[in-house]
Amino acid sequence: MRDYLDGPYKAARDVARAELAAHAEFAGLAERLPRDEYRDKVLELLLVAAADGLPARGYPKEYGGADDLGGFIAGFETLAFGDLSLMVKAGVQFGLFAGAILHLGTERHHKRYLADAVSGRLLGCFAMTETGHGSNVQALGTTATYDPATDEFVVHTPTPAARKDYIGNAARHGRMAAVFAQLVVGAESPERHGVHCLLVPIRDEDGAALPGVTLTDCGPKLGLNGVDNGRIVFDQVRVPRDALLDRYAQVDADGNYHSSIENPDRRFFTMLGTLVQGRVSVGGAAINASKVALTIAIRYAAQRRQFGAPGSAEEALLLDYRMHQRRLLPLLARTYALHFAQAELVDEFVRVFNDDRDEHDRRALEAQAAGTKALGTWHATETIQVCREACGGAGYLAENRLATLKADTDVFTTFEGDNTVLLQLVAKGLLTDYRRSFGELDPLGTARFVAAQAVEIAVEKAALRPLIERLRDVVPNRSDTSDPDAGLRDDAYHSGLLRYREEHMLSGVARRLKAGIDAGDDPFDVFNRCQDHVIAAGRAHVDRVVLEAFQSAVRDAPEEVQPSLHDLYDLHALTTIEAERAWYLEHGRLSPGRSKAITALVNELCAIVRPVAVDLVDAFGVPGSAVDVPMVVPSQHE
Amino acid sequence: MRDYLDGPYKAARDVARAELAAHAEFAGLAERLPRDEYRDKVLELLLVAAADGLPARGYPKEYGGADDLGGFIAGFETLAFGDLSLMVKAGVQFGLFAGAILHLGTERHHKRYLADAVSGRLLGCFAMTETGHGSNVQALGTTATYDPATDEFVVHTPTPAARKDYIGNAARHGRMAAVFAQLVVGAESPERHGVHCLLVPIRDEDGAALPGVTLTDCGPKLGLNGVDNGRIVFDQVRVPRDALLDRYAQVDADGNYHSSIENPDRRFFTMLGTLVQGRVSVGGAAINASKVALTIAIRYAAQRRQFGAPGSAEEALLLDYRMHQRRLLPLLARTYALHFAQAELVDEFVRVFNDDRDEHDRRALEAQAAGTKALGTWHATETIQVCREACGGAGYLAENRLATLKADTDVFTTFEGDNTVLLQLVAKGLLTDYRRSFGELDPLGTARFVAAQAVEIAVEKAALRPLIERLRDVVPNRSDTSDPDAGLRDDAYHSGLLRYREEHMLSGVARRLKAGIDAGDDPFDVFNRCQDHVIAAGRAHVDRVVLEAFQSAVRDAPEEVQPSLHDLYDLHALTTIEAERAWYLEHGRLSPGRSKAITALVNELCAIVRPVAVDLVDAFGVPGSAVDVPMVVPSQHE
Repeated sequence: MRDYLDGPYKAARDVARAELAAHAEFAGLAERLPRDEYRDKVLELLLVAAADGLPARGYPKEYGGADDLGGFIAGFETLAFGDLSLMVKAGVQFGLFAGAILHLGTERHHKRYLADAVSGRLLGCFAMTETGHGSNVQALGTTATYDPATDEFVVHTPTPAARKDYIGNAARHGRMAAVFAQLVVGAESPERHGVHCLLVPIRDEDGAALPGVTLTDCGPKLGLNGVDNGRIVFDQVRVPRDALLDRYAQVDADGNYHSSIENPDRRFFTMLGTLVQGRVSVGGAAINASKVALTIAIRYAAQRRQFGAPGSAEEALLLDYRMHQRRLLPLLARTYALHFAQAELVDEFVRVFNDDRDEHDRRALEAQAAGTKALGTWHATETIQVCREACGGAGYLAENRLATLKADTDVFTTFEGDNTVLLQLVAKGLLTDYRRSFGELDPLGTARFVAAQAVEIAVEKAALRPLIERLRDVVPNRSDTSDPDAGLRDDAYHSGLLRYREEHMLSGVARRLKAGIDAGDDPFDVFNRCQDHVIAAGRAHVDRVVLEAFQSAVRDAPEEVQPSLHDLYDLHALTTIEAERAWYLEHGRLSPGRSKAITALVNELCAIVRPVAVDLVDAFGVPGSAVDVPMVVPSQHE
Repeated sequence: MRDYLDGPYKAARDVARAELAAHAEFAGLAERLPRDEYRDKVLELLLVAAADGLPARGYPKEYGGADDLGGFIAGFETLAFGDLSLMVKAGVQFGLFAGAILHLGTERHHKRYLADAVSGRLLGCFAMTETGHGSNVQALGTTATYDPATDEFVVHTPTPAARKDYIGNAARHGRMAAVFAQLVVGAESPERHGVHCLLVPIRDEDGAALPGVTLTDCGPKLGLNGVDNGRIVFDQVRVPRDALLDRYAQVDADGNYHSSIENPDRRFFTMLGTLVQGRVSVGGAAINASKVALTIAIRYAAQRRQFGAPGSAEEALLLDYRMHQRRLLPLLARTYALHFAQAELVDEFVRVFNDDRDEHDRRALEAQAAGTKALGTWHATETIQVCREACGGAGYLAENRLATLKADTDVFTTFEGDNTVLLQLVAKGLLTDYRRSFGELDPLGTARFVAAQAVEIAVEKAALRPLIERLRDVVPNRSDTSDPDAGLRDDAYHSGLLRYREEHMLSGVARRLKAGIDAGDDPFDVFNRCQDHVIAAGRAHVDRVVLEAFQSAVRDAPEEVQPSLHDLYDLHALTTIEAERAWYLEHGRLSPGRSKAITALVNELCAIVRPVAVDLVDAFGVPGSAVDVPMVVPSQHE
């Protein structure tokens, strides 16, 4: 099973595992070291990883890399089995900072900086988020104004809200920052061209802030205290013209602005789209953090006894209690589902970037990455919480690792894109798919868009009817059937139900948007009234994609792992449907009897999976340094 | 509104508020100080609180107290607005340790120790939990064996699993421990009498461990690092016979055991029952921690802007987004509901203890305390998580307090009783209520009990039919009604639905238990097959109790707060029903149309509550030191 889970990037994963095993001493750093020492230790480990070539794997051969994007991401995800500060700092340095240079810069920047960035000789920040603007990147306040007199850009923080905030590497180690700023060109009649990225040195060789740059520390955080998040304020800082990362837009010496992408919205989303790797990686890391937690909690539950049959000599194992199975095993099943969905996403990512696919494929990839990131990170938050509670007071002690895992991963749900905003983005993509139009829409643009195109686009119920009818055949309303269990373990039935829900919600949203606009309501109000519906539709879509990824994985699996994988798949499919059974009941897709039968079958599947539960977490291949904690060392207990 | 919320114990709450305000410097201690210094600072503050008479309030006048139990608990709950390590350490010292002396000891113990314990001169531990046994207290491994030769008890840790674990005050400050141990009497033919409590000195005046006592540190935890949790191992430690807290059982010099309560199970539960105050207090503290989080997140949402209408000069306030309202406002409503349920619980607690009510009332109080603790602490975990996410990256910084709040409160769901075990206890109480039999049942005893009494008890559907019929009148099946909105804001409709669910689930569980036993199945298996059902039934009961407490509070409220309180109540009632709408649909109590109407009305109520949301959190009266965080200081943003 483990080989099957590791898939094509097994080698990269094993390198990362070996690295974690070799540096097992850094488990528990967060608790042992004062904050600054912890940060320096994490930097030291980062440089070890760089020396081992882990990050270089994802970069072009000419700059010391291996041109192996998939292996790069797989290795990065695997770091999530270890100290998450190291993983996040690696993400900042090798994913975001070096990635911005690679994707937004041109050959000049690559030659000058890329090898240093990838080796960790040049430590950098990814200075996008500001105090006043997180998700709404288009509204950033920092400015970069071209001064033709000196052939320089002047980078400036005009208001306190425009301060760069939560920036990794800023408080202590970063020497340079990839700064996202509103590009302003034209001295007499200044013209704004939207958000662009420039490389701005922030510290000198001795680590002192450069003139005009104010660097402060964000201070302690819930977790990830090995990452030196800080704030950056620019006071008229000058950088040469070629500091602009100019792949998509250039400014000439006279201050003329050129871009091959004329529409500014589209240009903005194209630039941002190249950074999709961050979301892909965070989703994968979150899923791997869930594996660590489940490995610990399920092994604990398989040896910890409490209460039991009256008069019996031995108490019962926690994992034999129905409630304990109910809490942990559906999460185990969903972790497998997300693992396979993530593997599909990484494959797609490699295809899109290596083959330089068209904009449609890129947009689809972005939506898939956004959705997987949202579900994967929420899943991690939920799973680690449940695992902590399932281990009681022992789970609260740092020595048993769940505490650190919980604190470190918590921010994943809101960084690299707030999950609710990401699900809106997914839904937006699906809505615009109706007419194959992309790129011009901010989240609220959806409403505008629908307003403008209402007549043309196929958002009316009528247009969707054939699809819904087709699905109705796949998903008969079982209200009238005599056997409520019939076909409950049928793959086509599961995906039929999830597809029906997705299409129904999506067409419902489209209809409501159109009706509101037709009635002449304010587009913001129209959108806002449907916001919960929009987000639910996005989620319904991702649920379906994840389910189908698991189905493919079961089909493709080697024969010897098929049976347990299929049970686990059924558990995942039916808990997903169970969680939304109110919706299916409301929409006549489940009868009350069938709904109850699903709950009963979920219980039964928990009991079926229980005997192989420990094997199933062992297959994750989490290194011992991450999961051999005192509470699961038998001698500590009996 | 604030006066109404503060209720009869306003004075005690205000003293605690003033104390928090006077020692505002200790906000952020957790991040500023190394662990041991943090622990010593918390001790210092504990002694300040003791000097101010906060804990003494709950103790008898003759030992320096004020005989004001309700005020004691209200003051303790209010400490949850400040540093939670201080609150928990106060709970250990003044609630658990001193409480064990008061409730389990006799006058001799009171005279010798109580004044010192309540003043903090004698720092003590509550040594119940062991490495191998948390919730299952009856199975503790530590022994206290009477040695008539020296008239002493020998306290001993026979196995590694019997080590006392997670004990507050043990790692650093405690001088004495109230140790729960299996009492063994009779040198030749030793006889076990179950778990009893003894006072055992553990450190000398200089803080060194006494001979035979091994004290170790549990090390860093997810939160509450100002509390010095530790482990205690006893190696044949001798204490005089009068170290036994002998209110419910005595051992004479010859080693004869006497107890006024003959049944050992009943004796055990009677002793444990006196400690109900701990659960009452933790539930209240969790609810207050939720108030802190909501105050921060709602104030933030009322000033933070992001995105907005296209082309509009200003971005929209987070609190004006439907999704943001949906995330925060039902939690605000539930916090009010739980606040009122907790106030009812404290009143009942005071009545039961002051009037020395009978066993039936005590059992009912214990169940109510268990249920409120479970719901209140899960609510805190959920609420603080949602508030953190609703504040994005800013919420992750320690300076904005949500991080600390999250880490500190997380253990509440599993300490003072694991929540799932507590809900089982609630359900057990309700099942046994059918025949007014109490006290003999461990959680699994329920099955045994049903087996033994199957013929006599009224668990058959027939017996419940009249009640269910009566409820059916209150809750007509609206499938056939033409107006799906009719009566949706009717109190009687809400409580009718919740009562129906509670009774239906409970009778269902009883039926399943009986059927399994009748079929000759193993009682443990019978119980285990229903465990999820049992716990859901317990929860359904507590949901109903909380709802009705909110209803009473609205009825009794002064006229000027009635309107907004009633809107908030409706929001709470309908989100509770919405969350369980699948069940109501499955059981024919909601039609699909009505179910959708409820969701629509919840959205509408969110919009209705939104304009008063800030006032509603202001009414919690959380001191500024707890909620005036950088991200809600306007100058930081604009």
